[in-house]
Order: sequence, then structure tokens, then C-alpha cells
Amino acid sequence: MLDRTTRINALYDFYQELLTEKQRSYMEMYYLEDFSLGEISETSNVSRQAIYDNIRRTEQMLEEYEQKLGLYQKFLVRQSLLKEISEIADERNDEQLKMKIEAIIEIE
Amino acid sequence: MLDRTTRINALYDFYQELLTEKQRSYMEMYYLEDFSLGEISETSNVSRQAIYDNIRRTEQMLEEYEQKLGLYQKFLVRQSLLKEISEIADERNDEQLKMKIEAIIEIE
Repeated sequence: MLDRTTRINALYDFYQELLTEKQRSYMEMYYLEDFSLGEISETSNVSRQAIYDNIRRTEQMLEEYEQKLGLYQKFLVRQSLLKEISEIADERNDEQLKMKIEAIIEIE
Repeated sequence: MLDRTTRINALYDFYQELLTEKQRSYMEMYYLEDFSLGEISETSNVSRQAIYDNIRRTEQMLEEYEQKLGLYQKFLVRQSLLKEISEIADERNDEQLKMKIEAIIEIE
């Protein structure tokens, strides 16, 4: 369950711009602020079931975007390789190299 | 005009999975195979105007995706930094580092 939440949060980071404002609002309350469905229902004046459906549908959309664009998967592979390069830079005590690697990591 | 075409081709590389099959078909005939609108019209049995509208709308969508996700822009910045790291690896004659950089470039 924690793994599932971590994954949804990561996918949300990559694809939130492709969601509607309402979808983002529910996702942030549920996943980032840890509100219960009942609490979101009260806050939003929308039925608990409708919010549940919206969140589940949004999760599906995030998985579909990931299937199409694979941004999270590419990110993980790239981070792992950058970590290895970073370790080489540490071993070599190469400050110039370290700075460039930091700059690439910040783009993600 | 060449710059415009280069940009649309690049955006198409990043976001084609988010387009419909019909959109991809017209874009590939027009941009990759260099068919004229008239030729696509004949091949597809669809009016020249409808194809023109579809392609223009698809170009807009590609720009909207880029505005939201910025994959092409991030790619350019990342490539530029990787090139700098690659040059450092060349100067240092560091084969291990070169291999890791190649691996990151291949993910793109």
C-alpha cells in the first residue's frame, strides 16, 4: 500500500499538468494532505462515491500516461546512472564533474 | 520554416503517443514522408481542408503538451550538460565515465 502511494505520488509529480483542476484538487487533498474521502466530501460538497470514482479514474489516467510516455521509468533509470557517475566523480575528487552532475539532477 | 519543421518533428518525437492514430498518420505523411496536403487528401479520401485543419490542430496540441511538460526543453538542457560531461570524460581519457554517459544519452 505504501508502495502504491509512493508510485501514485511520483506519477502525479510527472503528469499533474495534464489533469484538470478538479482532479488535481482531489488528488492533493487525498494523497498530499492525507484527507479521508469523507473529509474531502464535506469540504467539496460532493458525494464520497463521486470523489472516490474521480480519484480512481485519475490514478488510471496517470498509469496510462506513464504507459505512453514512461517519464517515471526513464527518470529512475537516469537517476541510477547519474548516481553511479556521481560516485565516480567523488572517487576522482573531481569538483567540475560533480557540479555538472548536480545541474543535470536539478533538471528532473 | 526549416526551424519550425525541426521543432514540430522534435515535439512529435516526444508526444506522439498522446495523439490519435489519425493524427499520427497525417503528421507522418506530412512531416516525415513529405507528402503534400493534396497527396494526403487523395490517399486518405478526406478533403484537403480537413487534413490541413487536423495537422494545424495537432501542431497546437504538441505545443500545448510542451508548455505543460517541457520534455523537449528539458531534453535540450540535459543534452547540453551531458555533452559538457562527455568532453570532460574525453579530456580525462576516462572510459568508465564515457560508458555511463553514453548509457544516459541512450535513455532519451
